Amino acid sequence: MKLYIGNKNYSSWSMRPWVLMKAFGIAFEELKLRFDFTPGSAFYQALAPVSPTHKVPVLVADDGFVVWDTLAIAEYLAEQYPALNLWPRDARQRARARSLCAEMHAGFGQLRNLCPMNIDADLAAVGQRLLSTEPKLHEDLGRLNALWGEALAASGGPFLFGEFSNVDAYFAPMVMRVSRYGLPLDAAAKAYAQAVQAHPAVAAWVADAVAEKDFLDFEEPYRQAGSAT
Amino acid sequence: MKLYIGNKNYSSWSMRPWVLMKAFGIAFEELKLRFDFTPGSAFYQALAPVSPTHKVPVLVADDGFVVWDTLAIAEYLAEQYPALNLWPRDARQRARARSLCAEMHAGFGQLRNLCPMNIDADLAAVGQRLLSTEPKLHEDLGRLNALWGEALAASGGPFLFGEFSNVDAYFAPMVMRVSRYGLPLDAAAKAYAQAVQAHPAVAAWVADAVAEKDFLDFEEPYRQAGSAT
Repeated sequence: MKLYIGNKNYSSWSMRPWVLMKAFGIAFEELKLRFDFTPGSAFYQALAPVSPTHKVPVLVADDGFVVWDTLAIAEYLAEQYPALNLWPRDARQRARARSLCAEMHAGFGQLRNLCPMNIDADLAAVGQRLLSTEPKLHEDLGRLNALWGEALAASGGPFLFGEFSNVDAYFAPMVMRVSRYGLPLDAAAKAYAQAVQAHPAVAAWVADAVAEKDFLDFEEPYRQAGSAT
Repeated sequence: MKLYIGNKNYSSWSMRPWVLMKAFGIAFEELKLRFDFTPGSAFYQALAPVSPTHKVPVLVADDGFVVWDTLAIAEYLAEQYPALNLWPRDARQRARARSLCAEMHAGFGQLRNLCPMNIDADLAAVGQRLLSTEPKLHEDLGRLNALWGEALAASGGPFLFGEFSNVDAYFAPMVMRVSRYGLPLDAAAKAYAQAVQAHPAVAAWVADAVAEKDFLDFEEPYRQAGSAT
């Protein structure tokens, strides 16, 4: 299988299936395409033959079969590798995990827009400013704390449903945003964010992202050329 | 089971699981909450005890177990009723169907924003105007035609993967938008839109929506009090 991804420092959607597959030992070839959203770019030329949406991530099976969108990739892998239990084993925990992933998939718009993932950067000062100027950021943050807190209280942690599963891979980019922008978390959520960052698959992505040093102006609303402003 | 939904004329997300369950004969109690997004409204008071996101739709099992978000509801029902084949039976068709649903879940933003679902209304004149003023609407419409066309060419129709499945319930509100705003479809997509509207479960929702006559100003950017402007 091939997984097409974007810049590791910025591509929060790419991070999800990459971390999932690494965490569960599913072998794949990584194809990283540098973000460039100008028409006719090398990014689009490489994606055109495989991705109907012209977006990353996209998973391509050995015979060319294409699965796109993070949720569909997760379900496809869960069906392909049932013994790995990518979702929680219990049916109701699994349903709850899917509710959380689906909420993440189309939600948290304020947090996502205001705090784009930038693993390389220390944006704590930006986060403090946003917290004082953006009331809607508090709504998303409150919901994130509640959602994580409720799942952790039910499971006992360290991950949302006990063992690391797809839902944790799914929230890993949110952990990176909260971490880099220094956003406040409840005690349980803070411990969870630390556990996610300590997971080897997440740590491997983060190490690659920090080593990448490929800064793109359009992904850097708060810095110039990789330097905090 | 109970399914909490919003106004049938407007609530495109509510339509999806309702149509799915009706189409497959899954019994449920419908609880319709009139849209009112002012803090402390009856809508929020009724939802607060059941929906962590304070949104519809939300599915509540007999013992109170809650599943939210349309995609998670679809997966939960597919697991609860495996013999019904809510997803296509073939693993790759199922993966493709999930890619399409996930793309719908977080995509088509221009079409959704510019053309909110309003089943009661004939908004063909509005649609014509939007087509001339909103180039991005054409992008979404082009993708919708391509996505439907490709699936229909592979399956032979009448539905995206042959038999009616969750993915058709998922696109039913898009069919209603395209129909009411008179947006142009390729021949295959047009036949598909007709087949969806002719499906008894879709027709039942549409009949309820038209009979509803509960017009809400904030859901009517193009009409006043139910009259085209």
